[in-house]
Amino acid sequence: MITKSKPNRAKLLISCREKPGIISTVTNFLLEHKANIVHFDQHTTDPRAGMFFMRIEFELEEFDSSIKKLEEDLHEIAREHALDWQLSNNEKRKRMAIFVSKTDHCLNELLWRWKSNEISVDIPMVISNHTILKDIVESYGIPFYHIPMSHETKEDAEQKALELMKGKVDLIVLARYMQILSPNFISKYPNQIINIHHSFLPAFVGANPYVRAFNRGVKLIGATAHYVTNDLDEGPIIEQDVQRINQRYTAEDLKTAGRHVERRVLAEAVSWHVEDKVLVHGNKTIVFA
Amino acid sequence: MITKSKPNRAKLLISCREKPGIISTVTNFLLEHKANIVHFDQHTTDPRAGMFFMRIEFELEEFDSSIKKLEEDLHEIAREHALDWQLSNNEKRKRMAIFVSKTDHCLNELLWRWKSNEISVDIPMVISNHTILKDIVESYGIPFYHIPMSHETKEDAEQKALELMKGKVDLIVLARYMQILSPNFISKYPNQIINIHHSFLPAFVGANPYVRAFNRGVKLIGATAHYVTNDLDEGPIIEQDVQRINQRYTAEDLKTAGRHVERRVLAEAVSWHVEDKVLVHGNKTIVFA
Amino acid sequence: MITKSKPNRAKLLISCREKPGIISTVTNFLLEHKANIVHFDQHTTDPRAGMFFMRIEFELEEFDSSIKKLEEDLHEIAREHALDWQLSNNEKRKRMAIFVSKTDHCLNELLWRWKSNEISVDIPMVISNHTILKDIVESYGIPFYHIPMSHETKEDAEQKALELMKGKVDLIVLARYMQILSPNFISKYPNQIINIHHSFLPAFVGANPYVRAFNRGVKLIGATAHYVTNDLDEGPIIEQDVQRINQRYTAEDLKTAGRHVERRVLAEAVSWHVEDKVLVHGNKTIVFA
Amino acid sequence: MITKSKPNRAKLLISCREKPGIISTVTNFLLEHKANIVHFDQHTTDPRAGMFFMRIEFELEEFDSSIKKLEEDLHEIAREHALDWQLSNNEKRKRMAIFVSKTDHCLNELLWRWKSNEISVDIPMVISNHTILKDIVESYGIPFYHIPMSHETKEDAEQKALELMKGKVDLIVLARYMQILSPNFISKYPNQIINIHHSFLPAFVGANPYVRAFNRGVKLIGATAHYVTNDLDEGPIIEQDVQRINQRYTAEDLKTAGRHVERRVLAEAVSWHVEDKVLVHGNKTIVFA
Repeated sequence: MITKSKPNRAKLLISCREKPGIISTVTNFLLEHKANIVHFDQHTTDPRAGMFFMRIEFELEEFDSSIKKLEEDLHEIAREHALDWQLSNNEKRKRMAIFVSKTDHCLNELLWRWKSNEISVDIPMVISNHTILKDIVESYGIPFYHIPMSHETKEDAEQKALELMKGKVDLIVLARYMQILSPNFISKYPNQIINIHHSFLPAFVGANPYVRAFNRGVKLIGATAHYVTNDLDEGPIIEQDVQRINQRYTAEDLKTAGRHVERRVLAEAVSWHVEDKVLVHGNKTIVFA
Repeated sequence: MITKSKPNRAKLLISCREKPGIISTVTNFLLEHKANIVHFDQHTTDPRAGMFFMRIEFELEEFDSSIKKLEEDLHEIAREHALDWQLSNNEKRKRMAIFVSKTDHCLNELLWRWKSNEISVDIPMVISNHTILKDIVESYGIPFYHIPMSHETKEDAEQKALELMKGKVDLIVLARYMQILSPNFISKYPNQIINIHHSFLPAFVGANPYVRAFNRGVKLIGATAHYVTNDLDEGPIIEQDVQRINQRYTAEDLKTAGRHVERRVLAEAVSWHVEDKVLVHGNKTIVFA
Repeated sequence: MITKSKPNRAKLLISCREKPGIISTVTNFLLEHKANIVHFDQHTTDPRAGMFFMRIEFELEEFDSSIKKLEEDLHEIAREHALDWQLSNNEKRKRMAIFVSKTDHCLNELLWRWKSNEISVDIPMVISNHTILKDIVESYGIPFYHIPMSHETKEDAEQKALELMKGKVDLIVLARYMQILSPNFISKYPNQIINIHHSFLPAFVGANPYVRAFNRGVKLIGATAHYVTNDLDEGPIIEQDVQRINQRYTAEDLKTAGRHVERRVLAEAVSWHVEDKVLVHGNKTIVFA
Repeated sequence: MITKSKPNRAKLLISCREKPGIISTVTNFLLEHKANIVHFDQHTTDPRAGMFFMRIEFELEEFDSSIKKLEEDLHEIAREHALDWQLSNNEKRKRMAIFVSKTDHCLNELLWRWKSNEISVDIPMVISNHTILKDIVESYGIPFYHIPMSHETKEDAEQKALELMKGKVDLIVLARYMQILSPNFISKYPNQIINIHHSFLPAFVGANPYVRAFNRGVKLIGATAHYVTNDLDEGPIIEQDVQRINQRYTAEDLKTAGRHVERRVLAEAVSWHVEDKVLVHGNKTIVFA
């Protein structure tokens, strides 16, 4: 579903240990604050002793003052009931940095969906270890930063990127960025860095998945969008999809065909993250798509 | 998702006009009755002035006594808040009659899913206007009734079927039953008769959809499961799916290939109905699949 | 499969009435001309008395002189055996005009695939009845022509477009062009105008398919790429695809979601046409994809 | 496409090293023998120096005598041109043994497609290391053999199975047979044993793929049909497909849901093998589906 950026809307995400009455508690709280619930999704890993997850999208009259009050009061109820929560609202868009290297298909898809307002974010910057995509990025009026990177300069380069983004970025999307980020860098944006891997993980973890897919003779190729963790290609999966192929596809053709799955899967995952539809639990995601 | 028939579980479906606090009201009510919510789904056609739909799957301790009390009290709260509701529980299985003519693919799929407990119903009878499928049905230990039908005998035949089913059937599945039911018959089972149409409705409404699909040169064929109303092929759609074809398929091949989509789509729709995941609103369905 | 534009390659399409020995005749002919067959596809509507279709992709040494000789000799063999044929080669790209109105998703998809060499054509011009997409088109270095059109000016406008394209265009793609072309215009480009319709035809023929899909409550929306004929939405279908939706999609959401199916389906159909993989027979296509 | 078993039809499969004129040679040969080509498919791994694969489905008048003559003459032409070939005809059905353990979904799907003539084979026997599926098999009039198997008795058990099948079986389908076959056994039926693995290989090679898929949090589960080789789960892949899942699926639900993908994928692969649409090249398949 496509949640167009509607004014007066907020989204509340909650995680906590299962216990009786959580839904009542939270919906009563929202009722008291005159919130009008539009979408309600929940998930429990085990209704008796598991983890509980909830996403509520609601509308408020006199939004600015009401949401402020609601947020203040949330702290109290959250403390009382040991709730982890996150409140976002459509008036305040997330800020997304895109990291790219040389290929443009994922970048283009994100920029097109952004421009046509399917992905409602601000894009304060695109960062690249190459300059080849500079013109495309700037044609959208988005600042482009070139930060070269080699094995030796990695620490400095990452530091430079972190400084550029400081206080300006809520989400990083690796749109076929061909560098491995350091644990230090990742720790600054926990569950806020989305990568696209060009295989249906966990098949073909690592390098050259299309060549390996070709050699193995699979009948479907795929792509996987996941949060980046210190374990390469092992982070929580947000979305996956596949495409049928046959013997006429060369390894090169797989790469070309795969681009369409990659950009679609990445764009979906980014949309869901931006609309606060993804919760992370351990190494897995709950997606209320 | 496959909801295996779990004991101690009940499902509450609610429809009403949108108004503030419905979710709170209902979840508070469930909390008071010590119901442990497992799945909660809702939908609103318009958060300000639309219709509101809710499905709650919950568990109860001391199920038999608790559910009785809860059901009694539901009447009151429903009256007070003008809620339409339906409460079902896994201890009491729905009773499903299957109507067939000569082809076995949909029947077989339903019986196999029933036997492997994917569709948790009782099947008190299969009714057919032919005898060809008698042996299959009886091999599953299910009573088979042959009710011949011609244009002249239709009224009598339907009457006979209604008498056979009286008090014994909650749901009728037309598993490629090649007769049109009369308005009188349909009125006895509103939104409780599921049909499978062999096209992706509204394309190829009416007879011979595969021949017409072949002649039109479509690249996908499909099937549609819907509730039966007096308007042929126009009832609320529950599920649809398609399959890719190409020029090598003859009209006959389409028919053969289409059987797989038909049985899959019908079985999904029936599962969802049986698990109380389908609500009807006007001529559309809300499916909490 | 993605046929990258390879040099030294030609594609021969043949249609004729079925008769014994056609494949032998043609492959012998190619062997005599030292053609190296890479892909061979055929289809027969009836091996005894139907129509026969064949696509052969082959390589030649000393391409320029060899292909010339081969083409000359083709005339003779075709006359002798009553073959309809079409010979194209990767050295001579097709010339494609794109017609657009106000929406950019199909245009963007075509331009991106063109720029990344997935669709190997020349694009001598984009023609529009609006000016809104001028900048995008010109940013790719492609001439943009604005030809306003009203009910009264239609004949003139079409005439103007025909003159602009005269001798420069082999294929016209209507990338969400919201005007109906006249029979006179269409007759100039038989089976060379591709349109994208925003439904899985023949469902929702005509205007506002997404609104009607919403009202009918379908569970899949789709798009159809077809050749344009004088019968609106009735031309030979080249490609179709669908996307799953649910009750949370508003009519507006369907429109937004549908864009992704539209651009994918149109781009596939255009690719296949450009790679000479589509043959038309009556009101149907044979696609050797 | 579904090739119904048509009389008077034969299928010729050819593999050889690429060299000029192979298609001409073979089609001339067929023309001389008055064969009427219905379907022609070919594939080359490299048009200059690769391997060439061809499948021709053709009709013959006075089938029995003509096919005999054609087969005799094939030996000569094959020797001359160093062709590997295989000729089969619809008059002589393949003989398929099914191996099962305790689960019935794949067995049922095969038997239903066999009975409805979608899979045109003879089934001389079903062999199982358990007795639980005996009644189902015998209800179809097919002999059921129980061959118990333990680690100690494996060699004897396999020997017993081989003797039972001797001269009676062309194809073995492991329809969720939970035993690993020995290299000796496999060597008796090279590229003639089809297995269904319950994951989209190469993901989740080995045991308990559904539990591991659940733990990894994938968004798609799949199944893979492949020829059995001595490398477990590493044989040539014939067909794969996937199904979308979400967080509501437990590990148990994945298993239940996966059954539908498994039976569909296995049945497709078996159909293609039976219709001689699969050629093996190294560890990959060419499928002319």
